Amino acid sequence: MIEIPARRGKAIRLAAGQSVKVINTFGQQVVDTWAFAAADIREFMSMEHTRIHIGRIIPRIGDPLLTNRRRPILTLAEDTSGGIHDTLVAACDRWRYELLGCVGYHDNCTDNLAAGLAELGLTPPETPSPLNLFMNIPVTDGNAIGVLPPVSTPGSFVTLRAEMDCVVAFSACPQDMVPINGAAMTPTAAHFEVFD
Amino acid sequence: MIEIPARRGKAIRLAAGQSVKVINTFGQQVVDTWAFAAADIREFMSMEHTRIHIGRIIPRIGDPLLTNRRRPILTLAEDTSGGIHDTLVAACDRWRYELLGCVGYHDNCTDNLAAGLAELGLTPPETPSPLNLFMNIPVTDGNAIGVLPPVSTPGSFVTLRAEMDCVVAFSACPQDMVPINGAAMTPTAAHFEVFD
Repeated sequence: MIEIPARRGKAIRLAAGQSVKVINTFGQQVVDTWAFAAADIREFMSMEHTRIHIGRIIPRIGDPLLTNRRRPILTLAEDTSGGIHDTLVAACDRWRYELLGCVGYHDNCTDNLAAGLAELGLTPPETPSPLNLFMNIPVTDGNAIGVLPPVSTPGSFVTLRAEMDCVVAFSACPQDMVPINGAAMTPTAAHFEVFD
Repeated sequence: MIEIPARRGKAIRLAAGQSVKVINTFGQQVVDTWAFAAADIREFMSMEHTRIHIGRIIPRIGDPLLTNRRRPILTLAEDTSGGIHDTLVAACDRWRYELLGCVGYHDNCTDNLAAGLAELGLTPPETPSPLNLFMNIPVTDGNAIGVLPPVSTPGSFVTLRAEMDCVVAFSACPQDMVPINGAAMTPTAAHFEVFD
């Protein structure tokens, strides 16, 4: 079991056929998730390419997650979290926190992606719009979006199966100015494990 | 009045304060739209940053359209088209048409973006997820997305006001294998004009 420390990023390499179980250890933590093709990290998981392919905003069990070249890179294989995730919202970044009134540096998922990949000697080619696991952004009337705490519970998880050799990066979202990581607005760690 | 030829791309420079009126000349044509900061084209209009800021999937009159650094680059100033546009779906590309069964090259919005910018001596830093003007992707039950003909009518238009010096690129979407450009599946030209 590997920790994604609270407010931090972590990346791993997966071989095709391996899976990663992402565990919402304390139940209310959003985990921003990215995947990059090992052969060429300019190919990566893309929410805007995935949505039109699966015909849904939120992927469900069995759905492939496509790259910007429209190839499956991951499959959402298991989900005990309640099935609420987000594909609509950008990773948080310094500018997000500045707009919310934060003065000075705030941890953010964009920098966490870069730090996670840096541990593997890689630089993200850009910051793709992430798969925000456990993030609850309801769409009402086909248009309005909300910002709500996760519906997931402690220990619930999602399993992602690699469809190609890839690098998967996670960020335990450090958002503590809106209740996206629970009403307590206290970011926590999450965990993952890799299996064949 | 400048033509965006059927199946092709076209880009222009706008100074802050100028506006561009994008006219759906024949009424059923989707126009993929991008905007890049003139000072640094690595800063560009981003649907995933805009949605969370405006609290909606589809921008409406008065909404700012934000860059990946969360600064307003355009404002949706006027809209006589019925207000149905798309921010969920990637620009079409060679892989989209291959998945639909097309053999050989098919015109596509991703290549049209590159061609439009090339006429100005620019190369896109990436292919941002576009603002798909007039594109009708309904969201039902907060999750499922559909692919329908535009609701816009001949001569209806959208006006976008530049909030910074920028380059705006358009593609008259060449999609002719699904009815996104009308039930006739016949892509047409569109037009635009710039005013102060």
